[in-house]
Amino acid sequence: MNISIIGLGLIGGSIARDLKSQIYVQVSGVDSNDNHCQMALDLGVVDQIISLEEAMDSSDVIIIAVPVDALQQLLPTILNQINDHQVLIDVGSTKKLICDAVRGHDKRGRFIAAHPLAGTEFSGPGAALKGLFVEKKNIVCESDLVQSDAMEIAMKIFDSLGMQTIFMDPSEHDKHLAYVSHLSHVSSFMLGMTVLDIERDEKQIFNLAGTGFASTVRLAKSNPKTWSAIFEKNNVHLSAALDQYILWLQKFKKAMDEGDRTAMETYMTSANDIKRVLNK
Amino acid sequence: MNISIIGLGLIGGSIARDLKSQIYVQVSGVDSNDNHCQMALDLGVVDQIISLEEAMDSSDVIIIAVPVDALQQLLPTILNQINDHQVLIDVGSTKKLICDAVRGHDKRGRFIAAHPLAGTEFSGPGAALKGLFVEKKNIVCESDLVQSDAMEIAMKIFDSLGMQTIFMDPSEHDKHLAYVSHLSHVSSFMLGMTVLDIERDEKQIFNLAGTGFASTVRLAKSNPKTWSAIFEKNNVHLSAALDQYILWLQKFKKAMDEGDRTAMETYMTSANDIKRVLNK
Repeated sequence: MNISIIGLGLIGGSIARDLKSQIYVQVSGVDSNDNHCQMALDLGVVDQIISLEEAMDSSDVIIIAVPVDALQQLLPTILNQINDHQVLIDVGSTKKLICDAVRGHDKRGRFIAAHPLAGTEFSGPGAALKGLFVEKKNIVCESDLVQSDAMEIAMKIFDSLGMQTIFMDPSEHDKHLAYVSHLSHVSSFMLGMTVLDIERDEKQIFNLAGTGFASTVRLAKSNPKTWSAIFEKNNVHLSAALDQYILWLQKFKKAMDEGDRTAMETYMTSANDIKRVLNK
Repeated sequence: MNISIIGLGLIGGSIARDLKSQIYVQVSGVDSNDNHCQMALDLGVVDQIISLEEAMDSSDVIIIAVPVDALQQLLPTILNQINDHQVLIDVGSTKKLICDAVRGHDKRGRFIAAHPLAGTEFSGPGAALKGLFVEKKNIVCESDLVQSDAMEIAMKIFDSLGMQTIFMDPSEHDKHLAYVSHLSHVSSFMLGMTVLDIERDEKQIFNLAGTGFASTVRLAKSNPKTWSAIFEKNNVHLSAALDQYILWLQKFKKAMDEGDRTAMETYMTSANDIKRVLNK
């Protein structure tokens, strides 16, 4: 099976690494960044680098793993050129606008809108990890619009990466992800920003940062361009999530300013419940 | 050397575990919670459980590792009873009020105000870890008020736990910690709160929470009573830190609401700098 991966960053590169290790799979890479192409070859992330045109001609499956803004431009173009046997998969972090953009397309049945919930704070082909998707969730939206043979091939690929696929409405996906992923990123970016802004003496941050701070601020190391595209595409849900988050922070600050330990503890005890929810 | 540890939670228990493994050190535990005492014995965290009075009589060194509100009450009482050869160390997370409370005490020279920057989101003797302090920073405040023989013994203990001790003014300590530790905890608690509040369907949180969310929300599992005491003692600095954090979140939300990707990326690129600061 010939699989082409467009976009050799953290996600595309990690998919490539895992698929490349399978017998009967040839993985070709496509990337507009020449340095990324060379790096992906040097690191053995892909078998070969080809052009987008070559990928359209030779691939059984095309996986698009570019930032969500580039995706929205690229997806209809690729779908226009795809034949009736090829399968197209996207792995972007927002799904509503993507699904809307291709809903009426006459090749819609060859396209799977997916979102593997995996990643790290690093980016580029050098960040690609083998096994990144093992035991991770993968969300597929509007699977009822996909032809059964295309869905079957896509599921084989998802399963072979070790993912557990669940199905969801694209609006629901974007709303949930605003809270459970995108908000975490904003909270972490702005925590980093606040500390850097106040602590002009970097040596003190380095000296005093414990493992708690490191964990909470980890996502602030993420790629700004990747995330600004995601935030832009999901701005309505994320804006509501941020409003709620700011409201809770203000409530907590009020309780603290008033010396109301009971209220602080009530909030924190409720928040503790995340332990039960995440571990169940 | 007889060392007594008052308070057998995460920090006290972890100190006990490491000291107990050293030859020539006998570690006794004191805790007002009978369950904690039994657990500490069963888990081998301490050699024996004794009363506070017995600890005062028999110890060369007394380490107080109780929550910071209990500490402020207990510290002067213990200092009143200490003799001229005993050494008293506290390991609480705020330092200004503690140092103020005992500054003029005639036994001030026997007391070391310390704060080892280590911990996890778990609590109680069952959370005590061997090696928790290895390569961690330890802050000592107002060391110039400590008699040299007491300081020497305390430094031997800190060194034997693997910590790197640095010295700092107590107000500076509290201000830095507000940003680099306490703010992280509030941001994480309220992130957990926001997601639990909105996502009434717990199954979706469980399904969709990636490693990014898990990392950012980890501190929301921390002990509410421990942290409400810390927040109360450090409320002035933490309130200022929260104001700054909320301000940055609002600025970010404004940029996103206005579709200003350049501003979003500028903020995130600045926040990325935390990578360089933390790794240097």
